[in-house]
Amino acid sequence: MKVIIVGGVAGGASCAARLRRLDETAQIIMVERGPYVSYANCGLPYYVGGLIEKQSSLLVSDVKTFQGQFAIDARVNCEAIKIAPEQKTIDLRNTLTGEVITESYDKLVLSPGAAPIRPNLPGIDLPGVFSVRTVPDVIAIKEWLGANQSLSGMESYTGFQTVIKKRAVVIGGGFIGLEMAENLLHLGLDVTLIQRDSQIIGPIDPEMARYCERFITEKGIHLLLNTEPASIQKNVKGALEVVTKAGEVYPTDIVVLGIGVRPETELAKTAGIEIGQRGGIRVDDQMRTNQPDIFAVGDAIEVKDFMTGEWSLIALAGPANRQGRIAADVIAGRDSRYRGTQGTAIIGLFGAACAWTGINEKTLKRLGDTDYEKVYIYPNSHAGYYPGAKMLAIKCIFRKSDGRVLGAQALGQDGVDKRIDAFAMAIQFGATVYDLEETELTYAPQFGSAKSPVNFAGMVAANILRGDMPITHWDQIGDGFLLDVRHAEELAVESVPGALNIDLVHLRDNLDQLPRDRQILVFCRSGQRAHYAVRILMQHGFQASNISGGMMSQSVFLRKDTVPGTLY
Amino acid sequence: MKVIIVGGVAGGASCAARLRRLDETAQIIMVERGPYVSYANCGLPYYVGGLIEKQSSLLVSDVKTFQGQFAIDARVNCEAIKIAPEQKTIDLRNTLTGEVITESYDKLVLSPGAAPIRPNLPGIDLPGVFSVRTVPDVIAIKEWLGANQSLSGMESYTGFQTVIKKRAVVIGGGFIGLEMAENLLHLGLDVTLIQRDSQIIGPIDPEMARYCERFITEKGIHLLLNTEPASIQKNVKGALEVVTKAGEVYPTDIVVLGIGVRPETELAKTAGIEIGQRGGIRVDDQMRTNQPDIFAVGDAIEVKDFMTGEWSLIALAGPANRQGRIAADVIAGRDSRYRGTQGTAIIGLFGAACAWTGINEKTLKRLGDTDYEKVYIYPNSHAGYYPGAKMLAIKCIFRKSDGRVLGAQALGQDGVDKRIDAFAMAIQFGATVYDLEETELTYAPQFGSAKSPVNFAGMVAANILRGDMPITHWDQIGDGFLLDVRHAEELAVESVPGALNIDLVHLRDNLDQLPRDRQILVFCRSGQRAHYAVRILMQHGFQASNISGGMMSQSVFLRKDTVPGTLY
Repeated sequence: MKVIIVGGVAGGASCAARLRRLDETAQIIMVERGPYVSYANCGLPYYVGGLIEKQSSLLVSDVKTFQGQFAIDARVNCEAIKIAPEQKTIDLRNTLTGEVITESYDKLVLSPGAAPIRPNLPGIDLPGVFSVRTVPDVIAIKEWLGANQSLSGMESYTGFQTVIKKRAVVIGGGFIGLEMAENLLHLGLDVTLIQRDSQIIGPIDPEMARYCERFITEKGIHLLLNTEPASIQKNVKGALEVVTKAGEVYPTDIVVLGIGVRPETELAKTAGIEIGQRGGIRVDDQMRTNQPDIFAVGDAIEVKDFMTGEWSLIALAGPANRQGRIAADVIAGRDSRYRGTQGTAIIGLFGAACAWTGINEKTLKRLGDTDYEKVYIYPNSHAGYYPGAKMLAIKCIFRKSDGRVLGAQALGQDGVDKRIDAFAMAIQFGATVYDLEETELTYAPQFGSAKSPVNFAGMVAANILRGDMPITHWDQIGDGFLLDVRHAEELAVESVPGALNIDLVHLRDNLDQLPRDRQILVFCRSGQRAHYAVRILMQHGFQASNISGGMMSQSVFLRKDTVPGTLY
Repeated sequence: MKVIIVGGVAGGASCAARLRRLDETAQIIMVERGPYVSYANCGLPYYVGGLIEKQSSLLVSDVKTFQGQFAIDARVNCEAIKIAPEQKTIDLRNTLTGEVITESYDKLVLSPGAAPIRPNLPGIDLPGVFSVRTVPDVIAIKEWLGANQSLSGMESYTGFQTVIKKRAVVIGGGFIGLEMAENLLHLGLDVTLIQRDSQIIGPIDPEMARYCERFITEKGIHLLLNTEPASIQKNVKGALEVVTKAGEVYPTDIVVLGIGVRPETELAKTAGIEIGQRGGIRVDDQMRTNQPDIFAVGDAIEVKDFMTGEWSLIALAGPANRQGRIAADVIAGRDSRYRGTQGTAIIGLFGAACAWTGINEKTLKRLGDTDYEKVYIYPNSHAGYYPGAKMLAIKCIFRKSDGRVLGAQALGQDGVDKRIDAFAMAIQFGATVYDLEETELTYAPQFGSAKSPVNFAGMVAANILRGDMPITHWDQIGDGFLLDVRHAEELAVESVPGALNIDLVHLRDNLDQLPRDRQILVFCRSGQRAHYAVRILMQHGFQASNISGGMMSQSVFLRKDTVPGTLY
């Protein structure tokens, strides 16, 4: 059996290695267009920023290792350009010499990945405009930054002299855009991030993104939301300029594109392979395309969303690796199947992190699904009495009808990954919020709290579903009667106009101040004292509801401009 | 309804607060023998070491808060001394005045906790011998250490002068013993830890404990395993001396007892409450004792082990809190039930951590359960190409028959809590190792790897169960043919006598050196290359098996005395 694998990074490399383990006799050829196989694409921005110092660190494996350990014929600088599915052949071009050869195959696996989107803007091909996909891309960025003096004229006074600081414009507020913005700032550049949408980090909901937007702004990134580039040009000083659709001009020394990626499907199309509605290669749950003996894996394919059943594009290394394994299994005659993806992901932000798993509220709304509720909680990353605890912001979405956990989003400076991992496991196994109440996670004061944030989310959600704690969100308060149960000192810092303040500890003695004919919407800093207050009020015959997340949520639901500062 | 709760820390305080939320009209009295309610008992050792600086940080709540927020009559310095279940009364003694009053109750909740074991040794009551349970205990330890010059005569040369260093002897290698040893070392004392058993950290298996033993030894703790104290005495210089059963004498300035805890059952016994076979109060899954209207929660009770169904004693804050909630629910007329415990726990060790969940191998052996297999893996805490990655050691135990995950133990300097949390979720939901192969956890290079350690454990285990990779452990090698597939440079550092070395990359060309009539036991550094080798050998008709964990496991299975140094 002769198997050709197109693409030598996550999905392709995993497939090749797995296939060899399953079949010692197969002839395996793995071709990679670029100069390296199995490189650390997730590390590229950190190489630009200097956190990963050596270029060699980015090379996880090499042609020699594939040959030696796996007896795999790995070919770099080798581009697959055309498939003839009837003849079962593929044309391979040596990108250095231009020579084209035709190889036959018994099985073909496509793992071409996804290409950075390069919008069709005037000036997009000017020198100094970069995408970030390969090792050569980041080498070119480092060379560009190292070679040129600042031409964009950003003056900066250091305390005893004025220096010219380089500027960068990053277009796009997803993974690559944010990681590049952080790393360019880390290098000392003045960084402007332009984002077309009204939020950064598309996979999370806008109110959660608000925290991240504030945080990167505090760190020094100039963030422009609802802003689209119209063109890139060179000014008289020789600097680049990004011109927005609104006509604003941003001079810069470098433009980095982080708009997103598009599945590479050109090669697949030469074989008449079906492309799905999202623009990715369509495969079944065994990674088979519609063409016999041709499989596809990784960022180039559409996968089923585990939660919604929808086709989606997920450009993540973990799923790509698993798909590669499954394709290898199937080629070797096994019955492995891909269960779909739940889209668990994380992005680092200046030492903090934002992570998510499962379904978000935007998607539920788009699907017209109203059988859900959500809670916002703000627990400490570990016991408050042990030094170094940081506040986390967590949104947990669950089914109203049966309590099933649908999704979770979290951010903060410590322990975000751990909590989203736990939610990801819960979602994988169809857990309910009642299950999360019982979850037993590691606790010592430096690692967590006796009630972990995961327990806590479950308890709050279960309180709602059991009818113990009606809940309201800041965008639903209507003409409800607002009751603030915080201390007077807290109100001095920030308060909500029109809200009556009765400190929780005085509530039982002041019930006569509250209306019996209106919904009383209670809030505190994060929701715990409001919960206690709601319980008191309900048992005294009032209609009461807890505004989820209290002042912490209010600040992201209603006040885009202010920075609470407590979260980070 | 009048409810009296005995004990005002984890279980009692949770019960009291929850009950108030459920029942605004109940009269709730919470009595605590000591001077503080709701104190941070898990933080006590870190207060001794100075990491938690302020005594006030240990006081999570207070009598005033219980009164104000919850309208709970919280009484400190109030010891419950006798229950009359027929009359439904309890006698309460003011520990300051000695005054005894009798209170009636409708429902009684016992949350007396567990007392540190004080072995009946000569000298156990000498000044300078301490247990660690309450805030006054640690205040006394700090005062003792602050007040006295070293009498035990440990001379230490600082580089320009000789100083007399204080010595400490800690008895017991569990949570309190290890945390106190670390904190005393942190204070500059010379610390000796005496442990009766042949390993520290009883809930993990001995080979995993071996890493921890090496690590704390490297950090400077003098560890004596298989050592039992016989007496404590004062020597002529006025210093304390711990004399072991073997007759060795350890002079010291302080003795800290960390031998374990024993459920406090004296009060329960006055009410004729049933005590279980493990010495704890016996309750049903609604926290009811055998006496009508008397409940018990927390460290004083026996709980069902979620995995084995056995009664066990679990002195942990998380379970205590949940039990308190359940007792409150049941008293308020709800049908909540305790699902048992899976014993998830973590201990910090000099910035590293050791954590576990589910069942350990010792327990399986004790139960005569042979339907299990185990894997040892040594993944990085995050992508190796991103700075700061640390090796983790993970043992995962699973059912041979159906792949169900039974337990996991992990240790390392980073990300131990996160991985054990994921395993804990998996176990809660009855996951199999095949499920773990599919698990989708957060990945970015600073947080993990595309294949997380949890996926990796699942893949290795599934390889075994599918018959793709037979496995052997170092204590089962018998007369197998040992094949080391590492590089020559690695052998120069450490090697296994009698093993043939063929570097993996040369294996296919040297198959004729291997016997066809013997089991070939393959190993490398941690098991990955050995896996590749086993696959090659099996497909070429050899009987081959991977020695799980390779050299990393060999060092703890077979070599107690050496320090590999790579893990930490």
